[in-house]
Order: sequence, then C-alpha cells, then structure tokens
Amino acid sequence: MDQYKESDTQIDVSSLEKGPDSLEFGYDKAYAELPTVEECERAEKAGYDGVIIYCFADPGLNAARERLTIPVVGLCEASIHLASMLGSTFGIMAAGSSDMFGSKRIAILNRMQGYGFRHKCASIRTLDVEVLDLVKDHDKLIAQLLIEGREAIQIDGADTIVLGCGGMLQIGENVSRELNAPLIVPALAALKICETLIQMNVSQSKIAFPLPRKKKRLS
Amino acid sequence: MDQYKESDTQIDVSSLEKGPDSLEFGYDKAYAELPTVEECERAEKAGYDGVIIYCFADPGLNAARERLTIPVVGLCEASIHLASMLGSTFGIMAAGSSDMFGSKRIAILNRMQGYGFRHKCASIRTLDVEVLDLVKDHDKLIAQLLIEGREAIQIDGADTIVLGCGGMLQIGENVSRELNAPLIVPALAALKICETLIQMNVSQSKIAFPLPRKKKRLS
Amino acid sequence: MDQYKESDTQIDVSSLEKGPDSLEFGYDKAYAELPTVEECERAEKAGYDGVIIYCFADPGLNAARERLTIPVVGLCEASIHLASMLGSTFGIMAAGSSDMFGSKRIAILNRMQGYGFRHKCASIRTLDVEVLDLVKDHDKLIAQLLIEGREAIQIDGADTIVLGCGGMLQIGENVSRELNAPLIVPALAALKICETLIQMNVSQSKIAFPLPRKKKRLS
Amino acid sequence: MDQYKESDTQIDVSSLEKGPDSLEFGYDKAYAELPTVEECERAEKAGYDGVIIYCFADPGLNAARERLTIPVVGLCEASIHLASMLGSTFGIMAAGSSDMFGSKRIAILNRMQGYGFRHKCASIRTLDVEVLDLVKDHDKLIAQLLIEGREAIQIDGADTIVLGCGGMLQIGENVSRELNAPLIVPALAALKICETLIQMNVSQSKIAFPLPRKKKRLS
Amino acid sequence: MDQYKESDTQIDVSSLEKGPDSLEFGYDKAYAELPTVEECERAEKAGYDGVIIYCFADPGLNAARERLTIPVVGLCEASIHLASMLGSTFGIMAAGSSDMFGSKRIAILNRMQGYGFRHKCASIRTLDVEVLDLVKDHDKLIAQLLIEGREAIQIDGADTIVLGCGGMLQIGENVSRELNAPLIVPALAALKICETLIQMNVSQSKIAFPLPRKKKRLS
Amino acid sequence: MDQYKESDTQIDVSSLEKGPDSLEFGYDKAYAELPTVEECERAEKAGYDGVIIYCFADPGLNAARERLTIPVVGLCEASIHLASMLGSTFGIMAAGSSDMFGSKRIAILNRMQGYGFRHKCASIRTLDVEVLDLVKDHDKLIAQLLIEGREAIQIDGADTIVLGCGGMLQIGENVSRELNAPLIVPALAALKICETLIQMNVSQSKIAFPLPRKKKRLS
Repeated sequence: MDQYKESDTQIDVSSLEKGPDSLEFGYDKAYAELPTVEECERAEKAGYDGVIIYCFADPGLNAARERLTIPVVGLCEASIHLASMLGSTFGIMAAGSSDMFGSKRIAILNRMQGYGFRHKCASIRTLDVEVLDLVKDHDKLIAQLLIEGREAIQIDGADTIVLGCGGMLQIGENVSRELNAPLIVPALAALKICETLIQMNVSQSKIAFPLPRKKKRLS
Repeated sequence: MDQYKESDTQIDVSSLEKGPDSLEFGYDKAYAELPTVEECERAEKAGYDGVIIYCFADPGLNAARERLTIPVVGLCEASIHLASMLGSTFGIMAAGSSDMFGSKRIAILNRMQGYGFRHKCASIRTLDVEVLDLVKDHDKLIAQLLIEGREAIQIDGADTIVLGCGGMLQIGENVSRELNAPLIVPALAALKICETLIQMNVSQSKIAFPLPRKKKRLS
Repeated sequence: MDQYKESDTQIDVSSLEKGPDSLEFGYDKAYAELPTVEECERAEKAGYDGVIIYCFADPGLNAARERLTIPVVGLCEASIHLASMLGSTFGIMAAGSSDMFGSKRIAILNRMQGYGFRHKCASIRTLDVEVLDLVKDHDKLIAQLLIEGREAIQIDGADTIVLGCGGMLQIGENVSRELNAPLIVPALAALKICETLIQMNVSQSKIAFPLPRKKKRLS
Repeated sequence: MDQYKESDTQIDVSSLEKGPDSLEFGYDKAYAELPTVEECERAEKAGYDGVIIYCFADPGLNAARERLTIPVVGLCEASIHLASMLGSTFGIMAAGSSDMFGSKRIAILNRMQGYGFRHKCASIRTLDVEVLDLVKDHDKLIAQLLIEGREAIQIDGADTIVLGCGGMLQIGENVSRELNAPLIVPALAALKICETLIQMNVSQSKIAFPLPRKKKRLS
Repeated sequence: MDQYKESDTQIDVSSLEKGPDSLEFGYDKAYAELPTVEECERAEKAGYDGVIIYCFADPGLNAARERLTIPVVGLCEASIHLASMLGSTFGIMAAGSSDMFGSKRIAILNRMQGYGFRHKCASIRTLDVEVLDLVKDHDKLIAQLLIEGREAIQIDGADTIVLGCGGMLQIGENVSRELNAPLIVPALAALKICETLIQMNVSQSKIAFPLPRKKKRLS
Repeated sequence: MDQYKESDTQIDVSSLEKGPDSLEFGYDKAYAELPTVEECERAEKAGYDGVIIYCFADPGLNAARERLTIPVVGLCEASIHLASMLGSTFGIMAAGSSDMFGSKRIAILNRMQGYGFRHKCASIRTLDVEVLDLVKDHDKLIAQLLIEGREAIQIDGADTIVLGCGGMLQIGENVSRELNAPLIVPALAALKICETLIQMNVSQSKIAFPLPRKKKRLS
C-alpha cells in the first residue's frame, strides 16, 4: 500500500493474536469482534491518529467507534461509499470456496441493507478462491476476477467493481482497464478515507457512538 | 414466564459466565457475542430443541444460527415480527439512563434497518431506568412506561408498544389495558416463536446460515 | 393439522356458504370478503379465542380485525413473518393454472408491498396445478414443488420456501429435506401464530383497528 | 363537476343499492366492494367508455380492473398521482370524526404504501367533520381545511394538499389560493384521468388484471 | 397528436434554436436546459395556458416550474405516472444506438429513483435505432419494439410498456394489441396531463417551486 | 483550504464568467450547468488531475463525468458520503434567506433521493443568511449555525452536521466542538475525495458515464 499512502502517513499493521484464521462466517465474526476492538483500543493508546479494521466484514466497527475517539474505518463501508460516487450500481467480488457462498452472500447483503446501499449493489459474486490461498493463486484469482467481473457488468448491470476481501491487494489497475470499469481495492479505500478523516480533523459522532461507561466485562 | 409457556415445554435459563454485566453499548455486544454463541452450542449438545438468546440486542444471533441446527430465536427480531402483525407501526421502549440513549437509539434503528422494519418503527423512547435497576424500580418503570407509551402513541403515531429490554418481564397486561394498545414483552415473544418453530419442525435456513467449516479459532 | 396444534387447542373448520369456489383473482376476493368477515363475527360470538382466515389471499383480514377483539390471523401474513425469521429472502410457490399467473403474481407482489416485505420476496412461482385439484394431483404437486423450489433457490436466490395456498397441507418435511431449505406451510404458520397471540393475551391494536360504529350496511 | 369535464363527456352517477351508508372503516369496505364491482360491470355492459369508483378508499378497484376492459379509475390513486406531479410531498385531509381517525389514518397509510407513495405523503390529518355532514357543514369544513392545510404545510412539510374524501366537491380554488398550494379535489382528478385514458385509448393491463374465468361465486 | 387532443385545445410546437441536435447524454442535457427554460418563459409571456417540455429526459423541468406559474409538464414524468395507474410494473423502451445505452440506462434509472418510481420500473431496454432515424426507420422500430416489448414482459416481468423517446409518435395501438399490454406514448401522456391540469385550474406548487428572485444571470 | 490539502496538491480556483451570481434555485442551476461543464473541459485540457465543482447543488456533475476522464467531484455528494460514515443520520444547514427555503429544501431533498440517502437525512434547516453575505456576516452565521445545529440534533435526531453551501469555509472545528458532533465542510470533503480518487488512480465509470459522441450542440 506504500505507493498509495501520503508521504507523511505512517502505516503499521498488527495481526490479531486471537480470533479465527480467516473471516468467512458470522461464526468467525463472533470470534473476531472482541480481539479486534481490543486491538483498536491499544492503537489509540499507542498514539495512532486513526484505525483501519482490515477485514471486509467490518468486524467490531461500531463497537470500536464507541470506545475510541480517533476515526475508525471499515473496509467494506469505505469501499461502497467510494464506489457509490463513481457509478450507479456496483458488483462485489467475494472470495472463498463457492459452497460457502450462500452464507457470505447473505452476510454481504445484510451489510448492504444495514449501510443503506442495498439498491446500489447490483451483484454479489464469488471468485471461488480460498481466502487463505489468495496470494499463492494469484493468476487464478485474476482470471476469475475478469470472468465474474464481466458477468457482473453484462448480466447483473453493475458499472463499478468492488473487491470483497482485504486479502486482494496486488490487483487493480490492469483488471480495471480490461473490464473498462473502476475497481475498488478495499484496503486502499479504507486507507484513503482514514487519511481523509484525520486531515479534516473529524471523527465518528459521539452522539451516535458515545463512550461506553465503565462496568464489569469479562472476556 | 411459566404461565405463558405450553404445558410440555421445559425452560432452562443459563447465565453467561463471561461477557458484560449488561448490554447497553455496541462495545458491550463485542464482549457478549462469543460467550453467547458458545452457550448456544452447549445447549444444542445438551439436547435442547431450541435456543432463545435472552437479550433485546440479539447478540450472536446469526453466528449461532450458522453453528446450530436447532432454531435460534432473538428477542428483538421475534418481538417486532409479532408487533408487525398486530398494527401498522410500533414504538420501542428502551431501558437505560437517558444520557446513553443516543447510542442505544442508533443501535436499535440499525437493527430495524437490518431486519427491514425501519418504516414500521414509529418511535424509539427511553424509560430512563438503569437496566440493572429494572427489578427494584418497578413502580417507576411502570409510571415511565405509561408516560412514554402514551407519547409514542399520541405524538409519534405508534399503535403497538414493544418493550426494548429482556429484563422487563412482570409487566404487560395492565399497562396494555391502560394504553389501549397491545404490548409485546420480548421474552414471551421469543418463547412463543421458539415453541412455534419447534412444533412446526422448521429451523433457520442452512442455505442462509451454513455450518461453519472447521478451522483454528482462538478465543 | 392435529399433530401440530397444542394439546389444549380445539380447532373447528367452517366453510363459507357464500363466496367463490376458490380464490384466484381480485374479483374472487370481492366475493369472499364480506362472507369471511361475517363468519369471523359468528366465531367471536360463539366464544372462540381466535380466528384464522384460511386463505393465502388474506381476504377481509383488516376488516375482521376492526370488528373483532379476539386475534384474527391471515395465512399469508403469518407465513412471511415466520419465513422472515428463518432466512434472508423467501420464494412463494403459488397454485393455479399458469395462464392466470400474471394476476396472481401481481396480487401477491402487492400484498408483499403492503406488508412491507417486498424486498425479502426473491421469487414468486406457480406450480401450475389448479387450486381445486391440489388434493387429487398430489404427486404432480410434489414434483412441481421440487422443480420450482430448486429454481427459486438457485436462480432467484431464495433461501426459504413459502407455499402460496392454504390447500397445500400434507406437504412439508420431505420436500423441505430434499430442498435443504425450510418450507413454510401457511395453515400451520397461521395456527401457531394464532395460538401464540392467544397465549400471550394480545390481540390486534384497537388504535389501528377500532371497532366500526353502528350504521346501515346493506348486503 | 360539469364545468371541469370536457364538452363531449357525458357523466352519469349511480348510487349503490347495497353497501354501507358511508365508507369510514375497513369493515365498511368489506360491505362496499362487491356491490361496487357489480355496478362497474353493469356500467361496462351499458356501454360506458370508462368507470370512476367514487370513493377515496378505492373499494373494489383491482377487482373491477380484472372484470372490465374499459378503464377503471379510483379517486385516491388518481389524486396522489396528480399531486406527485405538482410538488414534492403532499398532505391528505381526511373527513370523519376524529375519534375514528386512527383506523382511517392507517388505512390511508396502507394505501400509500400499496401504491408506492408512502415517502411522498408528508401528512395525514382529519377535518373532524362527519362524512355525511360534509354538505351541510360547509363553512366549518372550509375553516378546518384552512387550519389543517396550513399545519400540513408549515409543520408537516407538505407542499400540495389532497382532499381525502369524494364528498368534498364544491371546494377548491379559493382554499388553494389562501393556502398558496395546489389543492387536488379527488373527484375531479379521477374524472380527468378517466377522460385521459379513454382519449389515449389505453386501459388497465390485462397481464396485470386478467379477466377472471367463470366459476361459481355466490353472493 | 391532433386526434388525441381535445377539440378546444390549440397546440403549437416550437423548436429550440440552441441546444444539442438530440438529447442522448447528460452532456446533451447541459446544453438543452437553459434554452428549454427560456423557451418556456417565452410561451408563458405569449399567453399559453400550459407548457410541455417535449423530451423524455425532462430537461429543465423543475427550473421552468419555478419560473412559470402555468403548468409545466415533462414527458417522462407524465408517462410513468400514467403507467403506474395501469399495471404493477412497467418497462421502458429507450431509443438510440446500443453502445451508448449504459449512460442512457443510468440516466433513466436515476430519473426513476428521483421520481420515486424505481421499484415500479421492471425493465429498461434499448431499441437500437438512432434517435434522429426514428422516423425513416419506422418498420425496424416497430419490429424491435415487438421483440424488446415481449422480452420486457416475459423476462423482466413488466405488464405495461412506456416508450422512452418523444420522437416515437406514430406508434401505439397496433403494437399495444400485439403485446397485449398498454403502451404509453410519452407525447400523448404529457398532452393529456397538461390539458388535465389546465382544466382543473391547478399548477405546480409555488411552495415547492417558488419564483426565482431577480439577480444577474449571464448566459 | 491550504492547511487541509496534501503537500503535493496544487489547487487552482476558477470562477465562471457566465452563469448566475449565486445558485439558489433550480432556475439558477439551468444557467450554471453548461458554463460549469465547459470550465471542467478546460481544466482537463489544461492538464489537471481532477476537478471539483464548487457548489453544493452539484450543477453539471453527471454531464462533466461523461465528458471528462479525470475524476469529477461534487460538494454535496462528497459531503453526504463522508457524513454517512461518521454517524447514523445527518442534518444539512442550508444558506439563503428563509423565504426561498421551500424550493431549496425540496431541491436538497430531491438530491438526497437521487443519491439514495434520503433516509439518512434527518434534517434540512436554513441559516437565513444570504449566500452572498456569508463572508461579511460571519458572526451571525456562527450564531445561527449553533442554534439550528442544536435543533437538528435535539429535535430532528441528527447526529452529524453537513454545511449546505460551498461558501461556508472558515467554520468548522469550533462549531463542531460546541455541538459535540462532527461537522462536514463541503469544500474540504470534496477536496479530500478528489485527492483520494486521484491517488487511487480511479475515476468515474465510463460504463455509467460514457464519452458523449460528437454532434452539433449550439450554446
């Protein structure tokens, strides 16, 4: 991501010590939420200016927004907001084996409904590549992305493509050129929105996301 | 709840050993989700026919639906579905001190949006009684419920009232009579919907909520 | 329905003496509404605790809710509310010869719109079996149900199936197992929701459905 | 209505011999629908070119559209479609004593939802004049209309006013001038839309509203 | 249009001296809006009772409504409002070469969204005939209209057809009969709605569309 | 804006030579659109990497997106997309004398509807300061902003504030602190979104906004 960040932005990546190996199910999300929020808290205490939750399922997003005062940005939310300014309807290309796609499709659909973007989401398709194999199966990924992206455009009526996984990073401009459609890489979308909020000196509304008061919380 | 359950229904209540003291924030929810899902798993293994997640925030609902094959029912979801069959628009009476109401109101609004019921929710009001004081402050609770319930009806245009907390149990028929409006007690709503699903021999769709495959998940 | 009802529930079935032979059109509904409402009135006078209007078109539902104080339940409304708690989107399998399907599809679509569930209804398909032949053509019905149900799931994206006619009763668990999706039988859905409302001691809101005042009404 | 109709339009008014004295409840509508549809059938047989169902509740509208091939027009539907082309949001001024307004408000809200215009309806208010007293209490009606109309505009944000009853006919231009907002008289709206459809030689879609096939229908 | 207008209506057609040759893009619309509004102003000054903006893109519609007090009617808005009263969902048949259809489809979709009719628009298809060739390629136009109209009905689920261009005038009743669906010719729809508003003596709401105050505006 | 831009961003401001003095009406917009689009074309030819249309009415936005390949950003669209990521519902504070507010409110409401954000917009209020007096009446502006902002939050339920005019620039952090809510300054929002798109190397979808083909367009 270094070529996309601003010169005075310093990015540090932190992996969760707890949680699931990958986030494919709502069940995985239940394991991921608390460790994610706790990591966000550590980041604020360590003096960072903003936090990106690096997963397209946006786990713990609203909880972290309550607990933190620095901006907290989610990959999915940031991506579809940018896509919404580039065209009329977008298609999401999810990762993960196709037999689990039902659950993932519905989780994405529910997120679209929750963010109020369901009518702008023309298409949810799967690339049928395991999330943990995204890096090593790069060629298959690109090939699938071109096939599914074209179908999202020609059959489903999408005019903009959103990758549906944080793991798909070294993609982008070539695929976008071949598809003749803008392609949103979620990690970049979140990076730029996070930089934007920091530079504008705004953060999540504390009316909407007030600081949780102290109480006993066992984990 | 014993007078409302069917004669051949056996109800067992299990409290979480981990998690927050009460669920008022999204932050609390991040602590509650995994212990809730794990408790649901134990219930299925122990041979129960269905599970109720006893909290109006429906923590871990979709995650548990994936992991279990027996029906999993949420208080909020069950309540608003019943309310939707009794009138045109409903008002929700949340509990908790009014200074934290912003966050709670938005969390409820987001759930309404997510369940697709936002246009049926005419009113979200707070009773300004701490969740943990609901039992000892019973008279204040009733008094507030009558005031806020009437305003929900007369000002906000609600015709049905939904209590917004699992803790408000010994209420109901008197208040309903005074307000001249049906009053949904979430725990009862969830109990009856759970009995209904068990007796109809249906459960959550495994297309929508497929069994999560095995992987490493650290908690 | 006896194996699904509770032990202390007594069900009596009453056929309309007037009205259409079957309800396939809005035109049929105009003939069915008043006799239906009048039969509901007789049921309340006879001391019943609740009424089910046994038709997927929900004829006279709101009118009867005004006139009665005991709960009045409609097959379509009850079915889609239960389906909505089992998955993300449902498909409706209507009965009746396919050349009349246009009208029926639109009537169902309008009901979905009126109940506020249009975005959850992924699919409306016809089984192409005459309503009055549903009993004798049972094998054809099952075969069609499997075909159309699979297409509703695979092509239209439904994850839950709702039968679209009160006449389809002896179906259910086998079909559900073959489709790997929950299948809602409307008559059972209405029975259980009716029992639920009676046991919760709630009924339709008299703010939403006030008692009609006396006036001359000629029929 | 004579000064508003076209010179070659002949209008005949027919009263129902059966049905309720006035249509204020869903219960009244159950009495009104069949006689209304039957009267529409007689009109088509008698050679009329189009039919207006003269009631703001649009009773029997879709049933008559199935049975007839000539255009069938409803007062409510026609009024809100015209209002929708004159401004951004409209307010409906219903008639009838205010203690029954709950039911009427919800019936109107449901019609708005059914027609897909709920988001354009900023305001539903009652004039608190009995439907059957509309003619003799003309001054009170006008006074109430000015009060409620102004509040619909200033408080509820309406920019166009729709009368909510077919009985309010000799109103219009003065009130509109005083309110500085267009005022739709439902009977005129329906008359002009009916003339429009006849002159354009179009009628309701027989795909959406196919002719009901013959069967036994007892009334 | 003479056979459709009322006997005492006088229609004058005025072509813009400035603006684009045809309106196919948002870019064309930027050229068309001001000349259109200026022509509307001239019409009001010349004493006309109402104005039709003769283009399916409705250029300058709201601007002209502010500046004028006589009714201003747009082809697209009038057409879909009439279609909405004839069936449940409509299909729009746009003109113009298919390689520019992406932009046109989105512009129409945005108009549907803006008018609040997106859920009633089942289908947007292109006839692949250049706008300026509509007159000379009449047979091709009819042939394409039958093909695309049938697919709109059978595949997309439309029950009513709306032509998507002001230039398609000498079409209508034959095509409608072959498709067995009502067909809305936009110019006629606008003509009849304009006559309707004039005869009802109503015009656009000056609350919604107030007269712009004087200021320097250079063109 | 210099303290908010990135170090390697160069901003040039160009005023329209034609068009209205200020944009308060749809009528003004008709004068502004073509000069705006032409100025955008000049910017692309002059080698700029992106264009901001500096007006909250987003005049010519989609037309310019067709004509240009570099990103074109609108103040209103950018602002509400950022606000949507900071809270649940936002309030817009428009400028301009209150007697013209009807028209402006509806224009903003229509834009919200068009962008698909109507349900997130809790409040549209006017500051009752002439657009052209925004600079000299700075104290009055701030005072009004605090009053209306508080009412937007407490009465209308907004949790985030969006300024509704490009002219209000030297505001922001103090007001935001007093209101305890994030405050979006449209010009900054557009600046940061424009930088974001340039750095991500994406631009508007040419499927949604194809290059207009050459034809005669007179202005």
